[in-house]
Amino acid sequence: MIDGLIDSIVKKGNPTVVGLDPTLEMIPAFIKNEKFGVYGKTPTAVSEMFYEFNRGIIDAVCDLVPAVKPQIAMYEKYGVEGLAAYIRTVAYAKEKGLMVIGDIKRGDIASTAEAYAAHIGGTTIEGEFFDLWQEDAITVNPYLGTDGISPFLKPCVERDKGLFVLVKTSNKSSGELQDRLIEAEPLYCHTADLVGKWGKEAMGSKGYSKVGAVVGATYREEGVALRKRLPHTFFLVPGYGAQGGAGEDLKGYFDKDGIGIIVNSSRGITGAYQKAPSFTANPEGTAFADEARTAVIVMREDLKKAL
Amino acid sequence: MIDGLIDSIVKKGNPTVVGLDPTLEMIPAFIKNEKFGVYGKTPTAVSEMFYEFNRGIIDAVCDLVPAVKPQIAMYEKYGVEGLAAYIRTVAYAKEKGLMVIGDIKRGDIASTAEAYAAHIGGTTIEGEFFDLWQEDAITVNPYLGTDGISPFLKPCVERDKGLFVLVKTSNKSSGELQDRLIEAEPLYCHTADLVGKWGKEAMGSKGYSKVGAVVGATYREEGVALRKRLPHTFFLVPGYGAQGGAGEDLKGYFDKDGIGIIVNSSRGITGAYQKAPSFTANPEGTAFADEARTAVIVMREDLKKAL
Repeated sequence: MIDGLIDSIVKKGNPTVVGLDPTLEMIPAFIKNEKFGVYGKTPTAVSEMFYEFNRGIIDAVCDLVPAVKPQIAMYEKYGVEGLAAYIRTVAYAKEKGLMVIGDIKRGDIASTAEAYAAHIGGTTIEGEFFDLWQEDAITVNPYLGTDGISPFLKPCVERDKGLFVLVKTSNKSSGELQDRLIEAEPLYCHTADLVGKWGKEAMGSKGYSKVGAVVGATYREEGVALRKRLPHTFFLVPGYGAQGGAGEDLKGYFDKDGIGIIVNSSRGITGAYQKAPSFTANPEGTAFADEARTAVIVMREDLKKAL
Repeated sequence: MIDGLIDSIVKKGNPTVVGLDPTLEMIPAFIKNEKFGVYGKTPTAVSEMFYEFNRGIIDAVCDLVPAVKPQIAMYEKYGVEGLAAYIRTVAYAKEKGLMVIGDIKRGDIASTAEAYAAHIGGTTIEGEFFDLWQEDAITVNPYLGTDGISPFLKPCVERDKGLFVLVKTSNKSSGELQDRLIEAEPLYCHTADLVGKWGKEAMGSKGYSKVGAVVGATYREEGVALRKRLPHTFFLVPGYGAQGGAGEDLKGYFDKDGIGIIVNSSRGITGAYQKAPSFTANPEGTAFADEARTAVIVMREDLKKAL
């Protein structure tokens, strides 16, 4: 997974992952009206509109970016119908040659973590194998320690899948626990060291491990220090765009070869159409997706400033 | 929710929550064979057998315990079909007068955490309200700080729901991060202080907050210290039984009135039949559930030793 991700980033010249975090407010009126018309004001209608919206975005950006990152919470909000749209989205993105990072932030122990590992490891029922979730990589939470991570390492090794462990998140209150000092270093550095250790068990062939870290764009100093601390850990970087991070803030997150991170933008890309005059003039068809494509190109150029 | 939980614990004289964490290995052969026969080796078959198994357990224990705690990972492993069994289980338990603690350990920020909060807050689609998940309370992860918890407080206040925040988990490696010293106190104590602070925003009327804490049975000294530190925080206690904790280990987890905790047992109850001669003699019908009922009674008596 990590080797393929690096290849795709290099080939497309773009370390962007598009966050697919749909909300009802994000869906263009013509899609919304059509689905409510057919299915009523129901979770099924929402599921259908999320999938159609995502498909439009994926079609518009799949030649420009290496990966998409659906945020499962946005789908889970609409129950099993919503989750069906998540799974269809994952499958469609893969069909279009994209890698899929499932932003699921699961974290539990032992047999429970093993069950969650089905997201990347698949599920076997009496000898029959089912890949029910299909993600290439997922995000996970480290609060429970090694017991909570080990079960996810198996599919990383055996099925070439990937993990991104929360280390330093992009939100304002991330420091309440993550920045507290332990032996003169903040907690997130200790988490980082664990991630480095776990990563050794699942190295790719290009210098990076299949066990990556989530490191927010909004804390530049911390990000740069973590890059030095974790030379073999790929970073998934949230917080660009809507949360305030810019390309220049990411100087030092890349390694000396300009590799090592993938930067997420969600609303900044999928919601770009909402302020676009071209969409107001022609609010149906692929106008919303065309604006996402433009936003991806603008972001790609902005990220070059960090190199 | 917390007031109702306390009332129910007092009325039933039992602070036990039954963990509903089904696995294929846990399902009695007669149920398994029947469902595989009808639905083939499919996620639908597993979904149907999990639901039927849970229903049997719920019928057998609903007059003895105040609550059940389905572990969502076990269902998520089987995709949307599995999650449908989770939702049916939650609904059935509530029908039978039980409170339901969804063990979902979600944790994210801002609009994402708001989306997860649908588990207890429900979902509104164009003015129509849907309670798609229906839990009375859920478990959540604190690693992201206040941003990750605030969105869950709203349904606690407005819909009388509950949270249990991971503080000191029962697993072996929980100390890797949770026990690290910050200003001479372990991290979990700092998490505990945050939980106490969050809890003030959602107090019940019986001295306990709707924001509780997860505190493992396997670390007695820590549990007792946390009881003193958090006089208004209800504890959800995993690690009893299969993980090694016993009734006596829980001395000091209760408050002076014998209230303040609810103790989980999963396999110890739902898997009790697997070693029972009565089941071997008569491996169909309600024998598996009868053994769960017996195990609940044994556990109830064991927990009295802690008082």
